[in-house]
Amino acid sequence: MSGPAASHPEVLRILETSLYVEDLDRSVAFYEKILGFPVILKDARMCALGVPGRQVLLLFRLGGSNKPSVTPFGTIPAHDGRGIQHVCFSVDRSALPRWRAHLETCDVPVESWIEWPNGGISIYFRDPDQHSIEVATAGLWPNDPCDEPLT
Amino acid sequence: MSGPAASHPEVLRILETSLYVEDLDRSVAFYEKILGFPVILKDARMCALGVPGRQVLLLFRLGGSNKPSVTPFGTIPAHDGRGIQHVCFSVDRSALPRWRAHLETCDVPVESWIEWPNGGISIYFRDPDQHSIEVATAGLWPNDPCDEPLT
Repeated sequence: MSGPAASHPEVLRILETSLYVEDLDRSVAFYEKILGFPVILKDARMCALGVPGRQVLLLFRLGGSNKPSVTPFGTIPAHDGRGIQHVCFSVDRSALPRWRAHLETCDVPVESWIEWPNGGISIYFRDPDQHSIEVATAGLWPNDPCDEPLT
Repeated sequence: MSGPAASHPEVLRILETSLYVEDLDRSVAFYEKILGFPVILKDARMCALGVPGRQVLLLFRLGGSNKPSVTPFGTIPAHDGRGIQHVCFSVDRSALPRWRAHLETCDVPVESWIEWPNGGISIYFRDPDQHSIEVATAGLWPNDPCDEPLT
């Protein structure tokens, strides 16, 4: 490995992360209720949910995007994810007790709770497709330290 | 659908998005060179790459996480993504010409270029596993409008 190129155009952040799901309505209901994400677009193929920080969670019906999607604006390339995926959302440390209570109230079992050596804390649970969902505080990764507030 | 719960604990943003890859070294080299993401952790099972905005791209070796990972801090639940996934990274509009030139220099074909009705522009290309990677400006989604600068 040669390391990052010295000069390359800049990425600002993640804009969209995707999960592939068996039942779109079931998953939308889960992400609205458990994570609090509002629906911003929904059709038979997919649903886009707004994530704070100007980001988007895309839920794709399994097998529904395995052909390119022709739109009036251009062609969206095909993709076709499968299996049990992992995604993690950032939360504030002060909200952890509320997260624990919220998951319990919603009958979503906590599968694991990890206190990381850099000070971060993760809570893991499953979505309706058994995707491994994590909410985590700062302090998991060196580029997201505990002691520097989010701007 | 009943809409988002009136009161739920807050998510701040996406922290980690994951791709499942055949050859970890090959994918790490691609994301370092093409996207400019530095390696922050790597072992035989996975690699974490830093994404600007205090986020992380996780590359998992296909099949390498299908059992829970026991660590001294707790147990990381199993997951096992498959297939051809989609992920999108946010870029500034002023950087689009540099992105186009960079992909050409690196022999990464542009599969599609879309100008969206809200003013956003997307460039799509493939990673070594044929995952559909997109870099996009603001103006794709209503929660990420063109005319509001990122804070």
